[in-house]
Amino acid sequence: MAELTDFSRLSLNQITTNRWTVPEAIAGCVEAGIPYISFWRDKVAATGLQESARLVREAGLKVSSLCRGGWFDDVTAQGRQKKLEDNRRAIEEAATLGTDVLVLVCGPAATKDIAAGRAYVRDCIEKLLPFAADYGVKLAIEPMHPMYAAERSVMVTLGQANAIVKELQTPNLGVVVDVFHVWWDPEVYNQIQAAAGTILGFHVSDWLVPLPDILMGRGMMGDGVIELRKLREAVEGSGYFGPIEVEIFNQVIWETPGDRVLEVMKERYLKHV
Amino acid sequence: MAELTDFSRLSLNQITTNRWTVPEAIAGCVEAGIPYISFWRDKVAATGLQESARLVREAGLKVSSLCRGGWFDDVTAQGRQKKLEDNRRAIEEAATLGTDVLVLVCGPAATKDIAAGRAYVRDCIEKLLPFAADYGVKLAIEPMHPMYAAERSVMVTLGQANAIVKELQTPNLGVVVDVFHVWWDPEVYNQIQAAAGTILGFHVSDWLVPLPDILMGRGMMGDGVIELRKLREAVEGSGYFGPIEVEIFNQVIWETPGDRVLEVMKERYLKHV
Repeated sequence: MAELTDFSRLSLNQITTNRWTVPEAIAGCVEAGIPYISFWRDKVAATGLQESARLVREAGLKVSSLCRGGWFDDVTAQGRQKKLEDNRRAIEEAATLGTDVLVLVCGPAATKDIAAGRAYVRDCIEKLLPFAADYGVKLAIEPMHPMYAAERSVMVTLGQANAIVKELQTPNLGVVVDVFHVWWDPEVYNQIQAAAGTILGFHVSDWLVPLPDILMGRGMMGDGVIELRKLREAVEGSGYFGPIEVEIFNQVIWETPGDRVLEVMKERYLKHV
Repeated sequence: MAELTDFSRLSLNQITTNRWTVPEAIAGCVEAGIPYISFWRDKVAATGLQESARLVREAGLKVSSLCRGGWFDDVTAQGRQKKLEDNRRAIEEAATLGTDVLVLVCGPAATKDIAAGRAYVRDCIEKLLPFAADYGVKLAIEPMHPMYAAERSVMVTLGQANAIVKELQTPNLGVVVDVFHVWWDPEVYNQIQAAAGTILGFHVSDWLVPLPDILMGRGMMGDGVIELRKLREAVEGSGYFGPIEVEIFNQVIWETPGDRVLEVMKERYLKHV
Protein backbone atom coordinates (compact mmCIF):
# COMPACT_ATOMS: atom_id res chain seq x y z
CA MET A 1 0.00 0.00 0.00
CA ALA A 2 1.39 3.38 -1.03
CA GLU A 3 2.27 6.01 1.55
CA LEU A 4 1.20 9.60 1.24
CA THR A 5 4.33 11.61 0.47
CA ASP A 6 3.26 15.19 1.06
CA PHE A 7 0.70 17.25 2.94
CA SER A 8 -1.29 18.49 -0.03
CA ARG A 9 -4.47 16.75 1.17
CA LEU A 10 -4.07 17.27 4.90
CA SER A 11 -6.72 19.20 6.79
CA LEU A 12 -6.90 20.26 10.42
CA ASN A 13 -10.34 19.74 11.80
CA GLN A 14 -10.51 22.51 14.33
CA ILE A 15 -11.78 20.26 17.13
CA THR A 16 -8.36 18.56 17.22
CA THR A 17 -6.89 21.77 18.61
CA ASN A 18 -9.98 22.66 20.55
CA ARG A 19 -8.39 25.47 22.54
CA TRP A 20 -7.40 27.42 19.47
CA THR A 21 -9.60 30.23 18.22
CA VAL A 22 -10.20 30.59 14.49
CA PRO A 23 -7.29 33.04 14.04
CA GLU A 24 -4.98 30.79 16.07
CA ALA A 25 -5.94 27.70 14.11
CA ILE A 26 -5.43 29.52 10.80
CA ALA A 27 -2.01 30.76 11.91
CA GLY A 28 -1.10 27.27 13.12
CA CYS A 29 -1.96 25.70 9.78
CA VAL A 30 -0.03 28.33 7.83
CA GLU A 31 2.97 27.84 10.09
CA ALA A 32 2.81 24.03 9.71
CA GLY A 33 2.21 24.08 5.97
CA ILE A 34 -1.20 22.44 6.28
CA PRO A 35 -3.30 23.58 3.31
CA TYR A 36 -6.82 22.79 4.56
CA ILE A 37 -8.82 23.61 7.64
CA SER A 38 -12.27 22.53 8.81
CA PHE A 39 -14.15 24.98 11.02
CA TRP A 40 -16.64 24.52 13.84
CA ARG A 41 -19.60 26.87 13.92
CA ASP A 42 -19.27 27.94 17.56
CA LYS A 43 -15.66 28.97 17.03
CA VAL A 44 -16.53 30.81 13.83
CA ALA A 45 -19.28 32.64 15.71
CA ALA A 46 -16.82 33.65 18.42
CA THR A 47 -14.49 35.28 15.88
CA GLY A 48 -17.29 36.47 13.62
CA LEU A 49 -18.34 34.91 10.35
CA GLN A 50 -17.10 37.62 8.00
CA GLU A 51 -13.86 38.03 9.91
CA SER A 52 -13.23 34.25 9.85
CA ALA A 53 -13.93 34.17 6.12
CA ARG A 54 -11.56 37.09 5.50
CA LEU A 55 -8.79 35.59 7.62
CA VAL A 56 -8.87 32.18 6.02
CA ARG A 57 -9.00 33.69 2.53
CA GLU A 58 -6.08 36.01 3.20
CA ALA A 59 -4.08 33.17 4.72
CA GLY A 60 -4.51 31.22 1.49
CA LEU A 61 -5.99 28.20 3.24
CA LYS A 62 -8.76 26.09 1.75
CA VAL A 63 -11.75 25.17 3.91
CA SER A 64 -12.48 21.45 3.71
CA SER A 65 -15.78 21.55 5.58
CA LEU A 66 -17.92 23.22 8.21
CA CYS A 67 -18.97 21.28 11.32
CA ARG A 68 -21.81 20.88 11.82
CA GLY A 69 -25.40 20.93 10.75
CA GLY A 70 -28.05 18.41 11.60
CA TRP A 71 -28.96 17.45 15.16
CA PHE A 72 -32.54 16.77 14.15
CA ASP A 73 -34.02 15.74 17.47
CA ASP A 74 -36.95 18.06 17.98
CA VAL A 75 -40.49 16.96 18.66
CA THR A 76 -42.59 20.11 18.41
CA ALA A 77 -43.45 21.67 15.07
CA GLN A 78 -41.93 24.91 16.29
CA GLY A 79 -38.74 23.21 17.43
CA ARG A 80 -38.45 21.46 14.10
CA GLN A 81 -38.95 24.68 12.19
CA LYS A 82 -36.28 26.35 14.28
CA LYS A 83 -33.86 23.51 13.64
CA LEU A 84 -34.37 23.76 9.88
CA GLU A 85 -33.76 27.50 10.15
CA ASP A 86 -30.54 26.88 12.03
CA ASN A 87 -29.42 24.46 9.37
CA ARG A 88 -30.12 27.05 6.68
CA ARG A 89 -27.86 29.46 8.58
CA ALA A 90 -25.20 26.75 8.65
CA ILE A 91 -25.47 26.38 4.88
CA GLU A 92 -25.04 30.15 4.43
CA GLU A 93 -22.06 30.11 6.78
CA ALA A 94 -20.41 27.29 4.82
CA ALA A 95 -20.82 29.24 1.59
CA THR A 96 -19.46 32.41 3.20
CA LEU A 97 -16.43 30.56 4.55
CA GLY A 98 -15.70 29.21 1.09
CA THR A 99 -16.44 25.54 1.58
CA ASP A 100 -19.04 23.49 -0.26
CA VAL A 101 -19.27 20.80 2.45
CA LEU A 102 -21.52 21.03 5.49
CA VAL A 103 -21.12 18.01 7.76
CA LEU A 104 -24.36 16.71 9.24
CA VAL A 105 -24.44 14.99 12.60
CA CYS A 106 -27.92 13.68 12.15
CA GLY A 107 -29.07 13.83 15.74
CA PRO A 108 -30.40 11.31 18.21
CA ALA A 109 -34.03 10.23 18.15
CA ALA A 110 -36.37 12.41 20.18
CA THR A 111 -38.19 9.36 21.54
CA LYS A 112 -37.53 5.63 21.93
CA ASP A 113 -38.87 5.12 18.41
CA ILE A 114 -35.57 5.04 16.55
CA ALA A 115 -37.22 4.20 13.21
CA ALA A 116 -39.30 7.37 13.51
CA GLY A 117 -36.13 9.31 14.38
CA ARG A 118 -34.50 8.00 11.23
CA ALA A 119 -37.46 8.88 9.04
CA TYR A 120 -37.45 12.38 10.50
CA VAL A 121 -33.75 12.87 9.74
CA ARG A 122 -34.31 11.81 6.15
CA ASP A 123 -37.21 14.22 5.90
CA CYS A 124 -35.16 17.15 7.24
CA ILE A 125 -32.35 16.44 4.79
CA GLU A 126 -34.81 16.39 1.91
CA LYS A 127 -36.27 19.71 3.03
CA LEU A 128 -32.83 21.35 3.23
CA LEU A 129 -31.51 20.19 -0.14
CA PRO A 130 -33.01 22.90 -2.38
CA PHE A 131 -31.65 25.60 -0.07
CA ALA A 132 -28.22 23.96 -0.05
CA ALA A 133 -28.26 23.75 -3.85
CA ASP A 134 -28.99 27.48 -4.07
CA TYR A 135 -25.83 28.13 -2.10
CA GLY A 136 -23.73 25.55 -3.91
CA VAL A 137 -23.30 23.64 -0.65
CA LYS A 138 -23.34 19.88 -0.30
CA LEU A 139 -24.84 18.19 2.73
CA ALA A 140 -22.52 15.47 3.98
CA ILE A 141 -24.15 12.78 6.11
CA GLU A 142 -21.63 11.48 8.61
CA PRO A 143 -22.70 8.11 9.95
CA MET A 144 -21.49 7.87 13.52
CA HIS A 145 -20.38 4.97 15.67
CA PRO A 146 -23.37 2.99 17.04
CA MET A 147 -22.29 3.86 20.58
CA TYR A 148 -23.60 7.37 19.81
CA ALA A 149 -26.98 6.14 18.52
CA ALA A 150 -28.86 7.31 21.60
CA GLU A 151 -27.12 10.61 22.14
CA ARG A 152 -25.87 11.96 18.83
CA SER A 153 -26.85 10.20 15.63
CA VAL A 154 -29.44 7.69 14.55
CA MET A 155 -27.38 7.34 11.37
CA VAL A 156 -24.94 4.63 12.37
CA THR A 157 -23.73 2.90 9.23
CA LEU A 158 -22.43 3.93 5.87
CA GLY A 159 -25.03 1.59 4.36
CA GLN A 160 -27.78 3.66 5.91
CA ALA A 161 -26.28 6.93 4.68
CA ASN A 162 -25.76 5.50 1.21
CA ALA A 163 -29.40 4.44 1.05
CA ILE A 164 -30.60 7.99 1.70
CA VAL A 165 -28.11 9.45 -0.77
CA LYS A 166 -29.27 6.99 -3.40
CA GLU A 167 -32.91 7.66 -2.70
CA LEU A 168 -32.65 11.45 -2.83
CA GLN A 169 -30.37 11.48 -5.92
CA THR A 170 -28.79 14.90 -6.05
CA PRO A 171 -25.23 16.14 -6.45
CA ASN A 172 -25.80 18.17 -3.29
CA LEU A 173 -25.90 15.17 -0.99
CA GLY A 174 -23.16 12.74 -0.03
CA VAL A 175 -21.37 11.06 2.84
CA VAL A 176 -18.39 11.58 5.10
CA VAL A 177 -16.33 8.49 5.89
CA ASP A 178 -14.82 8.85 9.35
CA VAL A 179 -12.61 5.90 10.23
CA PHE A 180 -13.43 6.10 13.95
CA HIS A 181 -17.12 5.69 13.19
CA VAL A 182 -17.01 2.97 10.54
CA TRP A 183 -13.91 0.79 11.02
CA TRP A 184 -15.76 -1.97 12.95
CA ASP A 185 -18.40 -2.51 10.24
CA PRO A 186 -18.15 -5.84 8.38
CA GLU A 187 -19.77 -4.05 5.43
CA VAL A 188 -17.50 -1.02 5.40
CA TYR A 189 -15.49 -1.86 2.28
CA ASN A 190 -18.59 -2.83 0.31
CA GLN A 191 -20.28 0.36 1.40
CA ILE A 192 -17.28 2.56 0.57
CA GLN A 193 -17.46 1.03 -2.89
CA ALA A 194 -21.20 1.70 -3.03
CA ALA A 195 -20.53 5.32 -2.07
CA ALA A 196 -18.34 5.91 -5.13
CA GLY A 197 -18.85 9.41 -6.46
CA THR A 198 -20.67 10.63 -3.36
CA ILE A 199 -17.86 10.73 -0.78
CA LEU A 200 -17.48 14.31 0.41
CA GLY A 201 -14.92 13.86 3.14
CA PHE A 202 -12.54 11.44 4.81
CA HIS A 203 -11.76 11.83 8.52
CA VAL A 204 -8.95 10.12 10.36
CA SER A 205 -8.02 9.46 13.99
CA ASP A 206 -7.62 6.12 15.77
CA TRP A 207 -9.43 3.72 18.11
CA LEU A 208 -7.46 3.29 21.33
CA VAL A 209 -7.40 0.02 23.27
CA PRO A 210 -8.69 0.14 25.89
CA LEU A 211 -11.05 2.92 24.86
CA PRO A 212 -10.50 5.63 27.49
CA ASP A 213 -13.82 7.41 27.10
CA ILE A 214 -16.98 7.26 25.01
CA LEU A 215 -16.74 10.77 23.58
CA MET A 216 -13.22 11.89 24.42
CA GLY A 217 -11.39 8.65 23.69
CA ARG A 218 -10.19 9.10 20.14
CA GLY A 219 -6.52 8.67 19.50
CA MET A 220 -3.83 10.06 17.23
CA MET A 221 -3.31 8.04 14.06
CA GLY A 222 -1.09 5.06 14.77
CA ASP A 223 -1.96 4.80 18.46
CA GLY A 224 -4.88 2.44 17.93
CA VAL A 225 -6.20 -0.49 15.92
CA ILE A 226 -7.80 1.08 12.84
CA GLU A 227 -6.46 0.00 9.46
CA LEU A 228 -6.07 3.59 8.32
CA ARG A 229 -4.18 3.00 5.10
CA LYS A 230 -6.51 0.26 3.96
CA LEU A 231 -9.49 2.55 4.51
CA ARG A 232 -7.78 5.48 2.79
CA GLU A 233 -7.03 3.32 -0.21
CA ALA A 234 -10.63 2.12 -0.24
CA VAL A 235 -12.02 5.66 -0.44
CA GLU A 236 -9.47 6.42 -3.16
CA GLY A 237 -10.68 3.29 -4.93
CA SER A 238 -14.10 4.95 -4.88
CA GLY A 239 -12.68 8.06 -6.49
CA TYR A 240 -12.17 10.26 -3.44
CA PHE A 241 -8.92 12.21 -3.55
CA GLY A 242 -10.08 15.24 -1.58
CA PRO A 243 -8.89 16.55 1.79
CA ILE A 244 -8.14 14.20 4.66
CA GLU A 245 -9.29 15.75 7.92
CA VAL A 246 -7.72 14.91 11.24
CA GLU A 247 -10.56 15.07 13.76
CA ILE A 248 -9.70 14.05 17.32
CA PHE A 249 -11.71 14.43 20.52
CA ASN A 250 -9.19 13.73 23.25
CA GLN A 251 -8.56 15.66 26.45
CA VAL A 252 -4.83 14.96 26.51
CA ILE A 253 -4.42 16.16 22.93
CA TRP A 254 -6.60 19.20 23.65
CA GLU A 255 -4.28 20.12 26.51
CA THR A 256 -1.16 19.78 24.36
CA PRO A 257 0.11 22.99 22.71
CA GLY A 258 -1.44 23.22 19.25
CA ASP A 259 1.85 23.55 17.38
CA ARG A 260 3.06 20.32 18.92
CA VAL A 261 -0.20 18.57 18.00
CA LEU A 262 0.20 19.63 14.37
CA GLU A 263 3.77 18.37 14.33
CA VAL A 264 2.77 14.90 15.59
CA MET A 265 -0.24 14.90 13.31
CA LYS A 266 1.91 15.48 10.23
CA GLU A 267 4.36 12.78 11.19
CA ARG A 268 1.61 10.24 11.86
CA TYR A 269 -0.23 11.23 8.71
CA LEU A 270 2.67 10.20 6.51
CA LYS A 271 3.46 7.12 8.55
CA HIS A 272 0.00 5.66 9.12
CA VAL A 273 -2.65 7.15 6.81
CA MET B 1 -48.12 -5.23 21.95
CA ALA B 2 -48.90 -7.93 24.50
CA GLU B 3 -47.34 -7.90 27.94
CA LEU B 4 -45.78 -10.94 29.52
CA THR B 5 -48.08 -12.04 32.32
CA ASP B 6 -45.95 -14.47 34.30
CA PHE B 7 -42.35 -15.38 35.00
CA SER B 8 -42.29 -18.72 33.22
CA ARG B 9 -39.64 -17.55 30.74
CA LEU B 10 -37.56 -15.36 33.07
CA SER B 11 -33.92 -16.22 33.62
CA LEU B 12 -31.35 -14.65 35.92
CA ASN B 13 -28.05 -14.30 34.16
CA GLN B 14 -25.68 -14.66 37.06
CA ILE B 15 -23.64 -11.58 36.14
CA THR B 16 -26.63 -9.39 37.10
CA THR B 17 -26.07 -10.38 40.73
CA ASN B 18 -22.34 -10.57 40.38
CA ARG B 19 -21.61 -10.84 44.09
CA TRP B 20 -23.68 -13.98 44.52
CA THR B 21 -22.01 -17.37 44.46
CA VAL B 22 -23.69 -20.21 42.59
CA PRO B 23 -25.51 -21.48 45.74
CA GLU B 24 -26.64 -17.95 46.59
CA ALA B 25 -27.91 -17.28 43.06
CA ILE B 26 -29.79 -20.59 43.03
CA ALA B 27 -31.38 -19.84 46.39
CA GLY B 28 -32.26 -16.32 45.22
CA CYS B 29 -34.03 -17.62 42.11
CA VAL B 30 -35.96 -20.25 44.07
CA GLU B 31 -37.02 -17.63 46.60
CA ALA B 32 -38.11 -15.22 43.85
CA GLY B 33 -39.87 -17.84 41.76
CA ILE B 34 -37.55 -17.39 38.80
CA PRO B 35 -37.44 -20.69 36.92
CA TYR B 36 -34.23 -20.24 34.89
CA ILE B 37 -30.66 -19.36 35.66
CA SER B 38 -27.63 -18.74 33.44
CA PHE B 39 -24.24 -19.55 34.95
CA TRP B 40 -20.80 -18.05 34.49
CA ARG B 41 -17.89 -20.45 34.30
CA ASP B 42 -15.69 -18.75 36.89
CA LYS B 43 -18.46 -18.87 39.47
CA VAL B 44 -19.23 -22.50 38.66
CA ALA B 45 -15.55 -23.31 39.09
CA ALA B 46 -15.51 -21.60 42.50
CA THR B 47 -18.37 -23.78 43.74
CA GLY B 48 -17.27 -26.84 41.81
CA LEU B 49 -18.84 -28.15 38.62
CA GLN B 50 -20.47 -31.28 40.04
CA GLU B 51 -21.67 -29.45 43.12
CA SER B 52 -23.17 -26.66 41.01
CA ALA B 53 -24.91 -29.21 38.79
CA ARG B 54 -26.29 -31.04 41.83
CA LEU B 55 -27.52 -27.85 43.50
CA VAL B 56 -29.32 -26.51 40.46
CA ARG B 57 -30.90 -29.89 39.75
CA GLU B 58 -32.09 -30.33 43.32
CA ALA B 59 -33.46 -26.79 43.36
CA GLY B 60 -35.58 -27.63 40.33
CA LEU B 61 -34.21 -24.72 38.29
CA LYS B 62 -33.56 -24.93 34.55
CA VAL B 63 -30.24 -23.67 33.18
CA SER B 64 -30.81 -21.37 30.23
CA SER B 65 -27.16 -21.10 29.19
CA LEU B 66 -23.53 -21.13 30.23
CA CYS B 67 -21.40 -17.99 29.79
CA ARG B 68 -19.05 -18.11 28.06
CA GLY B 69 -16.94 -19.82 25.46
CA GLY B 70 -15.11 -18.18 22.62
CA TRP B 71 -12.53 -15.44 23.12
CA PHE B 72 -10.60 -16.57 20.07
CA ASP B 73 -7.75 -14.07 20.07
CA ASP B 74 -4.60 -16.17 20.10
CA VAL B 75 -1.83 -15.88 17.58
CA THR B 76 0.44 -18.83 18.28
CA ALA B 77 -0.49 -22.36 17.22
CA GLN B 78 -0.05 -23.46 20.81
CA GLY B 79 -2.24 -20.66 22.16
CA ARG B 80 -4.91 -21.51 19.62
CA GLN B 81 -4.83 -25.19 20.53
CA LYS B 82 -5.16 -24.30 24.18
CA LYS B 83 -8.12 -22.05 23.48
CA LEU B 84 -9.93 -24.81 21.58
CA GLU B 85 -9.24 -27.13 24.51
CA ASP B 86 -10.70 -24.61 26.90
CA ASN B 87 -13.80 -24.32 24.75
CA ARG B 88 -14.19 -28.10 24.75
CA ARG B 89 -14.14 -27.96 28.57
CA ALA B 90 -16.83 -25.27 28.41
CA ILE B 91 -18.97 -27.57 26.25
CA GLU B 92 -18.57 -30.40 28.75
CA GLU B 93 -19.43 -28.05 31.59
CA ALA B 94 -22.59 -26.89 29.82
CA ALA B 95 -23.70 -30.48 29.35
CA THR B 96 -22.91 -31.33 32.98
CA LEU B 97 -24.90 -28.33 34.20
CA GLY B 98 -27.86 -29.43 32.15
CA THR B 99 -27.99 -26.69 29.53
CA ASP B 100 -27.65 -27.14 25.80
CA VAL B 101 -26.58 -23.51 25.14
CA LEU B 102 -22.99 -22.30 25.38
CA VAL B 103 -22.75 -18.56 24.71
CA LEU B 104 -19.76 -17.52 22.61
CA VAL B 105 -18.14 -14.15 23.05
CA CYS B 106 -16.12 -14.46 19.92
CA GLY B 107 -13.08 -12.48 20.94
CA PRO B 108 -11.25 -9.44 19.66
CA ALA B 109 -8.82 -9.69 16.77
CA ALA B 110 -5.27 -10.54 17.76
CA THR B 111 -3.90 -7.97 15.29
CA LYS B 112 -5.15 -4.90 13.43
CA ASP B 113 -6.37 -7.19 10.66
CA ILE B 114 -10.00 -7.47 11.71
CA ALA B 115 -10.96 -9.50 8.64
CA ALA B 116 -8.36 -12.11 9.59
CA GLY B 117 -9.71 -12.07 13.16
CA ARG B 118 -13.17 -12.76 11.82
CA ALA B 119 -12.01 -15.61 9.61
CA TYR B 120 -10.21 -17.13 12.59
CA VAL B 121 -13.34 -16.99 14.75
CA ARG B 122 -15.35 -18.74 12.06
CA ASP B 123 -12.66 -21.38 11.78
CA CYS B 124 -12.64 -22.03 15.55
CA ILE B 125 -16.42 -22.37 15.61
CA GLU B 126 -16.29 -24.87 12.77
CA LYS B 127 -13.64 -26.89 14.59
CA LEU B 128 -15.69 -27.03 17.81
CA LEU B 129 -19.00 -28.04 16.26
CA PRO B 130 -18.50 -31.83 16.10
CA PHE B 131 -17.42 -31.87 19.74
CA ALA B 132 -20.45 -29.77 20.72
CA ALA B 133 -22.74 -32.12 18.79
CA ASP B 134 -21.33 -35.12 20.69
CA TYR B 135 -22.39 -33.45 23.91
CA GLY B 136 -25.74 -32.23 22.63
CA VAL B 137 -24.63 -28.64 23.15
CA LYS B 138 -25.38 -25.73 20.83
CA LEU B 139 -22.88 -22.96 20.25
CA ALA B 140 -24.62 -19.59 20.46
CA ILE B 141 -22.84 -16.74 18.72
CA GLU B 142 -23.59 -13.51 20.55
CA PRO B 143 -22.86 -10.54 18.32
CA MET B 144 -21.72 -7.72 20.56
CA HIS B 145 -22.05 -3.96 20.32
CA PRO B 146 -19.49 -2.44 17.90
CA MET B 147 -17.97 -0.46 20.76
CA TYR B 148 -16.51 -3.80 21.91
CA ALA B 149 -15.05 -4.68 18.49
CA ALA B 150 -11.47 -4.00 19.56
CA GLU B 151 -11.60 -5.52 23.01
CA ARG B 152 -14.18 -8.30 23.09
CA SER B 153 -15.79 -9.39 19.87
CA VAL B 154 -15.13 -9.02 16.18
CA MET B 155 -18.69 -10.29 15.68
CA VAL B 156 -20.65 -7.08 15.84
CA THR B 157 -23.90 -7.57 13.97
CA LEU B 158 -26.62 -10.16 13.85
CA GLY B 159 -26.18 -10.18 10.07
CA GLN B 160 -22.61 -11.35 10.51
CA ALA B 161 -23.61 -14.09 12.96
CA ASN B 162 -26.46 -15.21 10.71
CA ALA B 163 -24.07 -15.51 7.78
CA ILE B 164 -21.83 -17.94 9.69
CA VAL B 165 -24.80 -19.93 10.97
CA LYS B 166 -26.14 -20.20 7.45
CA GLU B 167 -22.79 -21.19 6.05
CA LEU B 168 -22.05 -23.89 8.62
CA GLN B 169 -25.62 -25.31 8.55
CA THR B 170 -25.99 -27.44 11.66
CA PRO B 171 -28.61 -27.61 14.40
CA ASN B 172 -25.75 -27.14 16.87
CA LEU B 173 -25.10 -23.53 15.92
CA GLY B 174 -27.24 -20.46 16.42
CA VAL B 175 -27.32 -16.90 17.73
CA VAL B 176 -28.11 -15.00 20.89
CA VAL B 177 -30.02 -11.76 20.48
CA ASP B 178 -29.00 -9.35 23.24
CA VAL B 179 -30.92 -6.11 23.03
CA PHE B 180 -28.03 -4.03 24.40
CA HIS B 181 -25.79 -5.22 21.58
CA VAL B 182 -28.19 -4.98 18.64
CA TRP B 183 -30.84 -2.30 19.29
CA TRP B 184 -29.02 0.41 17.28
CA ASP B 185 -28.77 -1.68 14.08
CA PRO B 186 -30.96 -0.47 11.20
CA GLU B 187 -31.00 -4.09 10.01
CA VAL B 188 -31.94 -5.65 13.34
CA TYR B 189 -35.55 -6.55 12.53
CA ASN B 190 -34.64 -7.98 9.14
CA GLN B 191 -31.85 -9.99 10.72
CA ILE B 192 -34.04 -11.29 13.55
CA GLN B 193 -36.37 -12.51 10.84
CA ALA B 194 -33.45 -14.07 8.98
CA ALA B 195 -32.41 -15.83 12.20
CA ALA B 196 -35.74 -17.68 12.46
CA GLY B 197 -35.22 -21.16 13.81
CA THR B 198 -31.66 -20.47 14.98
CA ILE B 199 -32.24 -18.11 17.92
CA LEU B 200 -30.86 -19.78 21.04
CA GLY B 201 -31.28 -16.99 23.54
CA PHE B 202 -32.74 -13.54 24.15
CA HIS B 203 -31.03 -11.21 26.62
CA VAL B 204 -32.51 -8.04 28.03
CA SER B 205 -31.21 -4.96 29.85
CA ASP B 206 -31.35 -1.31 28.75
CA TRP B 207 -29.23 1.44 27.18
CA LEU B 208 -28.91 4.37 29.56
CA VAL B 209 -28.67 7.98 28.37
CA PRO B 210 -26.09 9.25 28.90
CA LEU B 211 -24.18 5.98 28.83
CA PRO B 212 -22.31 5.92 32.17
CA ASP B 213 -19.55 3.52 31.16
CA ILE B 214 -18.45 1.42 28.21
CA LEU B 215 -18.57 -1.94 29.99
CA MET B 216 -20.42 -1.25 33.23
CA GLY B 217 -23.08 1.06 31.85
CA ARG B 218 -26.01 -1.25 31.18
CA GLY B 219 -29.28 -0.38 32.82
CA MET B 220 -32.30 -2.16 34.25
CA MET B 221 -35.13 -2.64 31.76
CA GLY B 222 -37.17 0.53 31.48
CA ASP B 223 -34.37 2.87 32.51
CA GLY B 224 -33.10 3.43 28.97
CA VAL B 225 -34.08 3.84 25.34
CA ILE B 226 -34.28 0.29 23.97
CA GLU B 227 -37.60 -0.78 22.49
CA LEU B 228 -37.63 -3.97 24.54
CA ARG B 229 -41.12 -5.16 23.79
CA LYS B 230 -40.78 -4.58 20.07
CA LEU B 231 -37.59 -6.63 20.04
CA ARG B 232 -39.14 -9.38 22.17
CA GLU B 233 -42.07 -9.61 19.80
CA ALA B 234 -39.68 -9.73 16.86
CA VAL B 235 -37.80 -12.76 18.25
CA GLU B 236 -41.15 -14.38 18.99
CA GLY B 237 -42.13 -13.65 15.41
CA SER B 238 -39.06 -15.68 14.48
CA GLY B 239 -40.28 -18.57 16.60
CA TYR B 240 -38.26 -18.01 19.77
CA PHE B 241 -40.28 -18.59 22.92
CA GLY B 242 -37.42 -19.75 25.14
CA PRO B 243 -35.97 -18.18 28.27
CA ILE B 244 -35.43 -14.44 28.52
CA GLU B 245 -32.22 -13.71 30.37
CA VAL B 246 -31.64 -10.52 32.29
CA GLU B 247 -27.95 -9.76 31.88
CA ILE B 248 -26.75 -6.48 33.39
CA PHE B 249 -23.22 -5.20 33.93
CA ASN B 250 -23.68 -2.25 36.27
CA GLN B 251 -21.75 -1.38 39.39
CA VAL B 252 -24.72 0.16 41.19
CA ILE B 253 -26.85 -2.93 40.56
CA TRP B 254 -23.96 -5.18 41.57
CA GLU B 255 -23.77 -3.36 44.89
CA THR B 256 -27.51 -3.69 45.53
CA PRO B 257 -28.60 -6.71 47.60
CA GLY B 258 -29.44 -9.55 45.21
CA ASP B 259 -32.95 -10.13 46.52
CA ARG B 260 -33.80 -6.51 45.86
CA VAL B 261 -32.35 -6.74 42.33
CA LEU B 262 -34.54 -9.75 41.57
CA GLU B 263 -37.59 -7.92 42.86
CA VAL B 264 -37.00 -4.92 40.59
CA MET B 265 -36.08 -7.20 37.73
CA LYS B 266 -39.39 -9.06 37.95
CA GLU B 267 -41.39 -5.85 38.10
CA ARG B 268 -39.57 -4.34 35.11
CA TYR B 269 -39.80 -7.59 33.18
CA LEU B 270 -43.58 -7.53 33.21
CA LYS B 271 -43.77 -3.81 32.63
CA HIS B 272 -41.19 -3.30 29.88
CA VAL B 273 -40.18 -6.56 28.20
